[in-house]
Amino acid sequence: MTTNDRAPVLAALRGWLAASGLDGLIVPRTDAHQSEVTAPRDDCLHYLSGFSGSAGLALVLEDSALIFVDGRYQVQVRQEVDPALFEVRHLHDDPLDRWLKIHARPGWRIGIDTMLIAGNLYDRLATGCATAGAELVALDDDPFHAVWRDRPARPLGAIRAMPPQAAGETAANKRVRISEGLRERGAGLLVETLPDNIAWLLNVRGSDVPMNPVPHSFLLLGADNRLEWFVDRRKLGNDLDAYELADVTLSPPEQFLGRLAETVSGRTALIDADFAPQAVRACVLGAGGRLAAQTSPITLAKAAKTPAELQGYRDCHLEDGIAVVEFLAWVATEVPARQGTAKPLTELEVEARLLAFRQERAGFIEPSFRTISAAGANAAMCHYAARPETDAAIDTATPYLVDSGGQYLNGTTDLTRTLMLGAPSAEMRLAYTAVLKGFLSLLSVRFPVGTQGHQLDAFARRALWEAGLDYDHGTGHGVGHNLLVHEYPHRFDRKPNLHGLVPGNIMTVEPGYYKEGAFGMRIENQVEVIADGDGFCRFASLTLVPIDLAMVDLDTLSPAECAFLDSYHALVRAQLKTRVGIGALPWLLSQTQSIDEQRRLRRGVHHGEISGG
Amino acid sequence: MTTNDRAPVLAALRGWLAASGLDGLIVPRTDAHQSEVTAPRDDCLHYLSGFSGSAGLALVLEDSALIFVDGRYQVQVRQEVDPALFEVRHLHDDPLDRWLKIHARPGWRIGIDTMLIAGNLYDRLATGCATAGAELVALDDDPFHAVWRDRPARPLGAIRAMPPQAAGETAANKRVRISEGLRERGAGLLVETLPDNIAWLLNVRGSDVPMNPVPHSFLLLGADNRLEWFVDRRKLGNDLDAYELADVTLSPPEQFLGRLAETVSGRTALIDADFAPQAVRACVLGAGGRLAAQTSPITLAKAAKTPAELQGYRDCHLEDGIAVVEFLAWVATEVPARQGTAKPLTELEVEARLLAFRQERAGFIEPSFRTISAAGANAAMCHYAARPETDAAIDTATPYLVDSGGQYLNGTTDLTRTLMLGAPSAEMRLAYTAVLKGFLSLLSVRFPVGTQGHQLDAFARRALWEAGLDYDHGTGHGVGHNLLVHEYPHRFDRKPNLHGLVPGNIMTVEPGYYKEGAFGMRIENQVEVIADGDGFCRFASLTLVPIDLAMVDLDTLSPAECAFLDSYHALVRAQLKTRVGIGALPWLLSQTQSIDEQRRLRRGVHHGEISGG
Repeated sequence: MTTNDRAPVLAALRGWLAASGLDGLIVPRTDAHQSEVTAPRDDCLHYLSGFSGSAGLALVLEDSALIFVDGRYQVQVRQEVDPALFEVRHLHDDPLDRWLKIHARPGWRIGIDTMLIAGNLYDRLATGCATAGAELVALDDDPFHAVWRDRPARPLGAIRAMPPQAAGETAANKRVRISEGLRERGAGLLVETLPDNIAWLLNVRGSDVPMNPVPHSFLLLGADNRLEWFVDRRKLGNDLDAYELADVTLSPPEQFLGRLAETVSGRTALIDADFAPQAVRACVLGAGGRLAAQTSPITLAKAAKTPAELQGYRDCHLEDGIAVVEFLAWVATEVPARQGTAKPLTELEVEARLLAFRQERAGFIEPSFRTISAAGANAAMCHYAARPETDAAIDTATPYLVDSGGQYLNGTTDLTRTLMLGAPSAEMRLAYTAVLKGFLSLLSVRFPVGTQGHQLDAFARRALWEAGLDYDHGTGHGVGHNLLVHEYPHRFDRKPNLHGLVPGNIMTVEPGYYKEGAFGMRIENQVEVIADGDGFCRFASLTLVPIDLAMVDLDTLSPAECAFLDSYHALVRAQLKTRVGIGALPWLLSQTQSIDEQRRLRRGVHHGEISGG
Repeated sequence: MTTNDRAPVLAALRGWLAASGLDGLIVPRTDAHQSEVTAPRDDCLHYLSGFSGSAGLALVLEDSALIFVDGRYQVQVRQEVDPALFEVRHLHDDPLDRWLKIHARPGWRIGIDTMLIAGNLYDRLATGCATAGAELVALDDDPFHAVWRDRPARPLGAIRAMPPQAAGETAANKRVRISEGLRERGAGLLVETLPDNIAWLLNVRGSDVPMNPVPHSFLLLGADNRLEWFVDRRKLGNDLDAYELADVTLSPPEQFLGRLAETVSGRTALIDADFAPQAVRACVLGAGGRLAAQTSPITLAKAAKTPAELQGYRDCHLEDGIAVVEFLAWVATEVPARQGTAKPLTELEVEARLLAFRQERAGFIEPSFRTISAAGANAAMCHYAARPETDAAIDTATPYLVDSGGQYLNGTTDLTRTLMLGAPSAEMRLAYTAVLKGFLSLLSVRFPVGTQGHQLDAFARRALWEAGLDYDHGTGHGVGHNLLVHEYPHRFDRKPNLHGLVPGNIMTVEPGYYKEGAFGMRIENQVEVIADGDGFCRFASLTLVPIDLAMVDLDTLSPAECAFLDSYHALVRAQLKTRVGIGALPWLLSQTQSIDEQRRLRRGVHHGEISGG
């Protein structure tokens, strides 16, 4: 579909606006579950504009339209969206609520589907309209019903059970814990709209969208432990006994708001206003209920993994380590061999091959997110996804970055490695050495139980700062247990995150450096938070893949940094040397040599070069 | 005054409550300016309860009374307050608003003087009352008018000019800048209730309370640049030309709220709801004005010091360094000399001597806060102030901690040193070495312009965390220019602080460690934020006083740590060696030796001991 195809859609939507007595419509990018990966039928923003990024917002007016996207997508949006139809704005620097304050005209009525917008964002948009004397109008109906021809159906992905042995806790027990928590918080009802929270609570996994194994659905849990699950019955197998659904009332999703209204009158409903749709808040208040806006107790409980889940993460990381080591060994051989030939290795071929290596592993289901397989300047785009028209050849002149992960039956993986298969420039060495030092610094920190992500983030940046460099993304995120690869609430970021880290949390550590138009580099391990003495924690790496040191100035590493790397590489070697295919073994052994050995080797090579020259 | 004296006060207040139709009264600790140091007439909480700490809150009910104080004061409050009269609660863990939610009875009317409570805290208390069906009643009058016999008068401290050469900017220019900022923010009026902001804007300094040279007053600045200062005229000298008060309307403080009401109708008033009294917000809304709750633009402008102010800080730190080095050299000689005699050196004697050394310095006015002069276990109390009944002898068995500062005509100082004059225990060495490493880590960090305090705080804690230790206070704060020693808005803290650091900010860096009942240690330098390459900053130490290394395991210092210490001590030596009194010179030279020299010396001493033994 070319961008020209969007004019009729825009015209149809404007017709609908006129017929509905509205002056404008706000079109969010996401669905009722604030999903990062959405089903095709929920991609209204893409249908309207052609924009395929994972975050954004459009405002369609009678005679103009605007699209708001963040810094990651400023280039992509201009490739995908017709500038004659949409004016591009910055989602954060120049947000829609501020635009409305300044540009909305008094009397304007701007519609929005309140199932698609979280309560807190709705409030900002409503304030923006009100400041200008305009009105934000909550729509009863989805306007794309009327204008989207051949709209895909709602997904009906099968739901499977997550065995309680793998979850480490029965669904019944989780339910008792959470409903007790509701009583302690003085709430009568939990309104849950996040599918990963629902999947965790019920010990199920879904398949409505790729990569995110969660079932689109809604859930109400009473402080009295009564539970109603609003899910399309067709997603469940015929044998309900395969699930832990005793005492769970199953209802169609269409009944969710109606039942909420019936149930909430006179009670306090706990909702997470950063995620729950505005429609849910309005429903609670309209039905005479009270709101308690808090982080969902499921979000908090889910973040502290059970011993069984932790064992699952460790087991699937061993499988994932085998796949990735075999893959990287293959890349390291294949790139130089095919460089300069008519068929050099490219990003997309490599991505497919990585998937094939993972598909050989026990318990592997699918990727946990779209692989970032990026050579040369493409790697400077943090969220790059290779397409046939961008598919670059991987060579020995620039680093190759691969950020990928797998969904396994017993966990989820996410790691990044950056390989340099030729001689690095001084600039690359400076930056990559700093990225590695930051990575090691955060990975090795000991910290008090309850420390917050914003306290630790800068450990990963300090070495870059010292070199006058930085990266413009967070340093790490939670990872679900065969759930979302980006799991709330924990984050390492410059922005405050008030959720303290405790043993059992799973995080990524992923500093990087990106030089626009030239190269990109990132090192990422997944870690678990483990207890380390009275009141303190440390990170233990789950990822078992060597860290490429080709771009590292080994002589600048401190004894502590060398010891940490040596110990990590010794672990990786011990875990994998009897498990990887014979073809990958030399690469594994070479990459996991001690720093001293690698130093000696480099001096030898260097000496040899001089003698030879 | 013994605690028994409070019963009649409480009885009188309860009589007043009954006569006023109230069921309770909330008594804040502070004044209308949210001052840390208050005038005696504003010490209502002390008059009522005997509690002399710098933060707290009481609730007086018909048949009971509660006092809420924070962790620092849990011991002190039990020494000062009669438990038969007041039940002690924790200000943060068990705050008053939560107490009200649970314990207030429906129909209760709880009074509060809304000039003494910041708007945001008022909101929380009002919500607490409302949740319980009670009502928070804004009082028109100060109840202590009625019950406090012989109440001291309002202070009439003289106001002096801060010369524009020393401030680096004329008051007229500051006013133009701030009023332009108001227009940019869409505000018609700035309501300023913070005396240090007023002092900065008008280039004046006050003397209403000791140590904080700010004039109690209020101020209204229009976006049209009209300025009205509500200040007792008697505080100003007869010659108004000595001040930069052209085009400033002077009015009595009693007219502040009335004039605000007259002026604000139909305009937007910018107020800082973390500091401005609830009475101000109520006045604006009652008069038909609009509120814009933001950090005061003066708070932000004041934090970026002018070149003249920065030079002032440097100059007064040189003076202060001379005084403190002469003082510490004297302590280092005197303690061992008098130990074991009938008249050992004590905390209070030392505090007086420190003041005497400072009083010899050019430009010194008074201490910038009550000196913490603490020996042995007293140093484990972070906010200890020696009293005759606690006045401990300083000995060679435990560290001696001295945290002090001076108000100078051209700046304000704040530093802490911890001396160990005997042989430290292994535990002391472990902790102090970690404190020093944290101090050096934060002091030496390079960071992007705009980095926030919560991003940097943990650099000062990491070495302590590694040893399983930590400290329960912030790591640093802004310091005013001959203004408040604790200056908003910047802080190094575990809690988020959203105000980015820029060149020209002044901060302290002050990690510590406290072992209850045993010892306390802290190292504190004052620093300025300086530009360091494109988009980056560093800290440059203003404090010029050697750091005692007697408790440091020198062999655990990294080469970078040694180099940083050597460079700092070389600077201190170069700046001070021709300036300190001849008696202090040997101590200065010895304390500023390089780490290598100190290592050699220790090995020699050690060897000598072995030979001698």
